[in-house]
This record gives sequence, structure tokens and C-alpha cells, in this order.
Amino acid sequence: MRLEEAGYAGKLLKVLRDRGIEVYDRIRVVKNGFLYEGVLMPKPELSHPSCIILKLDNGYNVGISITSETKIELVAKGRPAKPELPPVPLKIREDLPEVVIIGTGGTIASRVDYKTGAVYPALTARDLYNIVPELSDIARLKMDVLFNIFSEDMTPKRWEAIARTVAKYVEEGVAGVVITHGTDTMGYTAAALSFALQDLPIPVVLVGAQRSSDRPSSDAALNLISAVKIAAQSPIAEVVVVMHGETGDTYCLVHRGTKVRKCHTSRRDAFRSINARPLAKVYKDRIVMLTSSYRRRDPNRQLKLEAKFDEKVQLIKTFPGIDPEIIDFLVDKGYHGIVLEGTGLGHAPEYILPSIKRAIEEGVAVVMTSQCLWGRINMNVYRRGVELLKMGVIPGEDMLPETALVKLMWVLAHTRDLKEVRRLMLTNIAGEINPRTEPLSYPPMEV
Amino acid sequence: MRLEEAGYAGKLLKVLRDRGIEVYDRIRVVKNGFLYEGVLMPKPELSHPSCIILKLDNGYNVGISITSETKIELVAKGRPAKPELPPVPLKIREDLPEVVIIGTGGTIASRVDYKTGAVYPALTARDLYNIVPELSDIARLKMDVLFNIFSEDMTPKRWEAIARTVAKYVEEGVAGVVITHGTDTMGYTAAALSFALQDLPIPVVLVGAQRSSDRPSSDAALNLISAVKIAAQSPIAEVVVVMHGETGDTYCLVHRGTKVRKCHTSRRDAFRSINARPLAKVYKDRIVMLTSSYRRRDPNRQLKLEAKFDEKVQLIKTFPGIDPEIIDFLVDKGYHGIVLEGTGLGHAPEYILPSIKRAIEEGVAVVMTSQCLWGRINMNVYRRGVELLKMGVIPGEDMLPETALVKLMWVLAHTRDLKEVRRLMLTNIAGEINPRTEPLSYPPMEV
Repeated sequence: MRLEEAGYAGKLLKVLRDRGIEVYDRIRVVKNGFLYEGVLMPKPELSHPSCIILKLDNGYNVGISITSETKIELVAKGRPAKPELPPVPLKIREDLPEVVIIGTGGTIASRVDYKTGAVYPALTARDLYNIVPELSDIARLKMDVLFNIFSEDMTPKRWEAIARTVAKYVEEGVAGVVITHGTDTMGYTAAALSFALQDLPIPVVLVGAQRSSDRPSSDAALNLISAVKIAAQSPIAEVVVVMHGETGDTYCLVHRGTKVRKCHTSRRDAFRSINARPLAKVYKDRIVMLTSSYRRRDPNRQLKLEAKFDEKVQLIKTFPGIDPEIIDFLVDKGYHGIVLEGTGLGHAPEYILPSIKRAIEEGVAVVMTSQCLWGRINMNVYRRGVELLKMGVIPGEDMLPETALVKLMWVLAHTRDLKEVRRLMLTNIAGEINPRTEPLSYPPMEV
Repeated sequence: MRLEEAGYAGKLLKVLRDRGIEVYDRIRVVKNGFLYEGVLMPKPELSHPSCIILKLDNGYNVGISITSETKIELVAKGRPAKPELPPVPLKIREDLPEVVIIGTGGTIASRVDYKTGAVYPALTARDLYNIVPELSDIARLKMDVLFNIFSEDMTPKRWEAIARTVAKYVEEGVAGVVITHGTDTMGYTAAALSFALQDLPIPVVLVGAQRSSDRPSSDAALNLISAVKIAAQSPIAEVVVVMHGETGDTYCLVHRGTKVRKCHTSRRDAFRSINARPLAKVYKDRIVMLTSSYRRRDPNRQLKLEAKFDEKVQLIKTFPGIDPEIIDFLVDKGYHGIVLEGTGLGHAPEYILPSIKRAIEEGVAVVMTSQCLWGRINMNVYRRGVELLKMGVIPGEDMLPETALVKLMWVLAHTRDLKEVRRLMLTNIAGEINPRTEPLSYPPMEV
């Protein structure tokens, strides 16, 4: 492909030509003290005239605006990449179970934003089929793009909208629901739906991707296939997250929605069950259940939608030097609940105790979780824990801080009575509290 | 042992006798709706007359005050525990290297507080020798009990005090320093000392215990032996944390102070190197180095003490529903720095961007880290990251949020110039930034 065909023109075209650079060559760019090295890619139609597109070695595309101060040089001559496959027309097999895919955004179908060079989510029904034609052999798919946001822009209000949409399709009698979601806050949404969708009769599967689907290294295909398989075929009637189980393309893991967390910024196997084993492994050709403790699929069970969340709840992580006035500030602003991400078994610095005490006295529910993430709150062991318990702090058991936050929002939407809030927070509602911690749930250290 | 010999008397003695309960019997107690089951233990001298001591199945001792409303019943007859060993007199071997042990408190030498029934730290020099007589065969020990606090009460001011004390002993020419510390905030202190003690000539080892040393299941002995061994014999001249490497009593791991985190509330192997491999394994009879990338011991190197920390720095974890006014509140209060524990590669909800922008415009340094913990910030990939970078948010690379917090406190004590703050935050000063993430540093999931 010639530079002109690839969309390069004007001054930029001259700069590239002068250096003997062609499309798919490996080049090096130094701009504002940052060095970028990668393969020069064709430009999309809407990109700025001064912008080049570079595929970095980590698989990400970046757009870099070239000015007279930017250094740019050829590293090695390249060869053309494989041409993209043409879109596959969708075959619908009427004998397969029906699965609805609810789109909310995220990397799983994102594309490079050629204005800033960054990735922008852009999901359509058509996209999904083009990415993974195999899907049409697993289920009859129905698409519903509910919204298209970065997952960091997910809010409690949007959890409610997702829950209501799921309920609509459960009512319609689909075999399973898949929700495509950005990975950043997928754990929070999974917890929220676990509480909002009581007595679920079918599987509700959240799925995302760590690399966008227009990249050869994308995990989107296996994740989507596995998610649809779980939704269509699995016996699990819970809210789960389905994501890569290791870095290869061999299997995905099915994580309980209240016990899962994104633990790595970029790896395919970023999602981990914490204080719980995953429910199942999904290979391309089969599902392997890892436990018998899960709610079974039963199309006759009646879903109870309880999709309200009290947004007057905040999460505060403690540390040496935390300002207790942040707690006072929240109490003064009329917040109803605070989840503390304390240290160890559930501790907080002595000098913030007066603020915690005052919060509880003013009717604010305060729940203790641990920034350790693994393990269980036990406030009977050390004097500080005993002091906090006496004040009325509610121990978060083995709940993730993020799950305790979502649960407290859900509980406070039902009741503001602190005794009842305590009772509900200490009751296992959606698998968020395990009576005993499973030893295998703490990953071994490889040394 | 008879009940009277074990310190039980008066009304409580009668209650126990009436139920046929003797010392070391398994009993059940129901109080205020809470059920406790465990083995009745002898009472220490100072305990309240109405208080019983119960060893729970998890190895912890609790004290429970028995009132007329408390239900108490025999579950099973027990047998006497093994008698405690008498204190061993200390032998000092002049041929061994000198190691100073600086006490700051924590479980490693804690005892049951017989007023509340909870555990209370109580460390003396004598205690340590009684716990682990083997120590006197590894090093000539010198003791300095600097303070005796719960580790959740550690503060930046106390980091400074510890650093100054270490510097004093380095000046005196000891072979190594061991700091006994509560485990809850040991990671924070390890990071703080890593920055405060520049050009360290000898090892500085933080050590703690997950179970107090008066319990048979304590990890204190192996941890202390390993810590003193590293301080006396290892070639590493860095601030490190030495704690159990697995749940057995076979070896400890040596973690770099800026890369270590407590990841489990109660397990012996709670401490993990994140985005880095441990530096070494310590067995009872040998030290196995796991890397060659560390600063070597050199008694001629001149320590530079830079023990100032700016306390006007806060850590804020983002989540769906976070109130951006918390950031405004910190800016209004005159804070100098904020570390965001964002999502994924370094993102934050769109609606808090105006508050972040305003913070930076008012001269507040804002650093982005990831609540994933593993992996690396990369704000060039998605539009939200690019937007935050443009505002001037400083990417925290592969630093732990806790380490980034401590580092920002340290950097802001040197300079308030945002350009210089950025330069220092992006410079690897004490092993806190790895140029490349080591694949082995993300633990595999056992399924």
C-alpha cells in the first residue's frame, strides 16, 4: 500500500518520504521527551492531516500528531499486514437457545479514536457477529445496545437501567443474558446485578475484553464465545463474570458476580475470584463445573427485581495520614453509608475513631472491609477492632470492599434502620459472604 | 490444672464448677447474640474476676466477661496443653555480626489484653529472646524499643522517627537493622523507609507476625530468625520486608520495600511482592537469592537521610458513584497532593474530571495509580486516559497505590514545583518503578 493510499498527504507525506518510510515500516518517533516505536499503519478517513497511526509492540494503536519538533526515523522496512476478513453474513439457527446480548460499551468492541489516537468504544450488533462468527452456532442471538460508555462512567443509576433491561428479557423467556461491559468497573456492576436480580431463573453473564477486537491479540472472541455458551447452556442461574482464565486462548473462568475483581491492568486473565473458587471453566467444546454450590437454572422461578441503589454511600480507604475530616465531610453532606477499606483484620487509625463514632451516632451505617482483599474481617482479635465494634461498625466478613460498597447502597435503598442494615449486611444474600474461606482461593506465589 | 490454680475464683468459679467445666475443656459461650466456642484457658494475673479466656479454633485467644445473662456450657472434656518452656538465658557470642532490633509494636510480640480480651502489643527485649533463643546464634543483638503501637496508628511522623533511629545505628556501624512492626501498615512503612534512607550501606529489614508469639501457631519465630539472618548475613543493602513465603514453616521471602503489600488478613504468607519478584528466599540454614538486581552491601557507602514527608497528601479510590466534592474539599483544605486509585489502566469517571482539573490548576499534584494493583498505568490507550494526561495527571507507572502515596509525600517534602514533582514521580528512586513488568509477578489462579 502506498503512503497516499494509506491516507498520508501534504507536509506529513513529504516528511515520511524524505526518511524513506512506507506503510507497515517499523519507525521511531520522539515527541515531548517520549519515545514511541512501532509499525506505521494506514490512516482512517477522519484522522487529522498531521496525525500518524502507530501500532506499538504491546498491540495497541496510538495516533501521534507530527509537528516540526517531532523526531521521526525509520527503524526497519516492514511487510504488509494480512488483509482483514470481510464481514460474515449472519445465519440464524432456529433450533438453538435464545440469548440476548445487552451492550453497555467497553473494549470488547472498541475501535481506535483517530482524533486523539486513543481507543473509543463503538459497539453495534453487526460488529459482534463480524468479530465472532462462531456465536451463531451456539445461540440465537438478539442484540440490545443499551448504552455505549467507558466503564469508568458506569453509575448506580446505570446499574438500575441494566437490571431493568435484564428483567425485561427474563420476562420474555430468553435462555440466558450476556452483558458486554468495559472491564474497569465490571466487578462493581456484577455485584450490583447480583443484588438487584433476586431469584434469577437463568444465567446473566458479564463479559468484556482487555484488548479491543480489531487487534490480532484480542481476547474478545474467546470471551464472547464462552459467555454466550454459559448463557445458553450452563446450569448456573446467577450473575457471573466470564473472562480468560490464563494468558493463552484455551479457557475462560466463570466468576461469581459478588466475588470477582479486576486484578491486573492489562493481562487477559485479569479477573480473579477473591475468597472463593470460580464456579466453572469454559473450554471451546465444553463447560467444566468446579463446584456444586450454585443456584440452578429453573425457567419457572420468578425473578424479583430489586434494582434500587442509595447513592449516598462512599468508600474510604484508610492509610497512615488519612484525614478524618473526610468522614466528617460526608456526614455533614448527609451521606447514609460509608464503607471503610481498613487495614488487616479490620482496623483504622486511632485518631479517626471520633469521626467514625460521630458518623454512627448521626445514623450513618459504617461497614469495615480490608484493603488486604483476601481473608476475612475479624474485629474480635485486637483492641482496636473491639473498640470499633463497640461503636457499631459493621464487620464486612469476607466481602470485597467493592462488593460491600454496592451491597450497602442496595441495603440502604431498602432500609435506613441501622439494626436492620446490620442484619442485612451480615446476611449472605448473593454469595457475597462465604461461611468459611476456601484455602485454594488465595493464589500461590511463584518463586 | 485446677480452676483455682488457673486463676478462676468467686462467682465465676462457681458457674464453671456447676457446669462441670475445667481448664482446657471445650466450652460454648453465648453473649449478646454472639456465639463463641473454644478451649477454656488459664487466666493471667491481671485479668478481671468475671473474665474467662477462650482459645478459639482459629488460634486466637479471646477474653469474655461473664455476666448473669451469659450462657455458658460444656461441649467436650479436654486435656492439658503442653507446659510452656522456661525463659532461656541469653548467651552473647562476640564473633557474630551486630544487628539492632528496633521495636515499634505489633503482633510479633503481642499478648492478650485481659481487660478487653483482645490482643495488645507488648514488646520488650527480653520477650524477643524468650520467643526465639536461636537468634543469639545468628547475631549479637541490640534492642531499641522505639515505640509500642498498633501498626494502624503508624504515621508519617513516626516513619521519620524510625528513619532517624535507623540512621543512628548505621552511623554506629551495625551489620544490619531489623524493625519489628505490626503487619497492617508494614508495607507503607517499608516504602517510606525506602525513600528516606538513600544510599543505604546495609540491610534494613521489617518483620512482623500474623499470629502473636504466645500462640503455638505463631509465625513469629521463623520470621524473626529469617529477618535477623538477612540483616546479619545477606548481601542486600535495601529496605526489605521478610515474612513467611508459604503457610508451612519452611521459608520466608524477602520483598523489596516499595513493591510489597499485605494481601491477606490472616495467613502467614499474607505479604506479596506486586509487579516484582521477591529478592530472596530464606531457609533456616541458607539464603537463596532470586535476582541479581539489588543494591549490594557496602559498609563504606554513606547513608543520606532524607526523612521528611509532606502530610498534606491523600489517597482517593475511585468507584461508580464517588463524590467529586471530596477532591474539592481536599483542595480547599490546602492539600498539596492527591493519589488517585483509579480503575484499569488509569481511569476515573468523567463527572469527576472538573474537580481533578481544578486541583491541578491550583497547584495540587495528582498521581494516577490502579486499584487493579497488578500491572501498569497506561493512559495513552483510551480517550479518558489521554484527557487526564492532558490535564497534567501524573501516571504512576507500575507503582502500588500505597507506594505512590508515600512517594508523593516524600517528593512534596522536597519540592512543590509541579514539573519537578512530575519528574521525580516518574523517576525510579528506590525500586518502586520497574521498566518492564515481570510476568512471574502475577500469581497464577489455581482451579
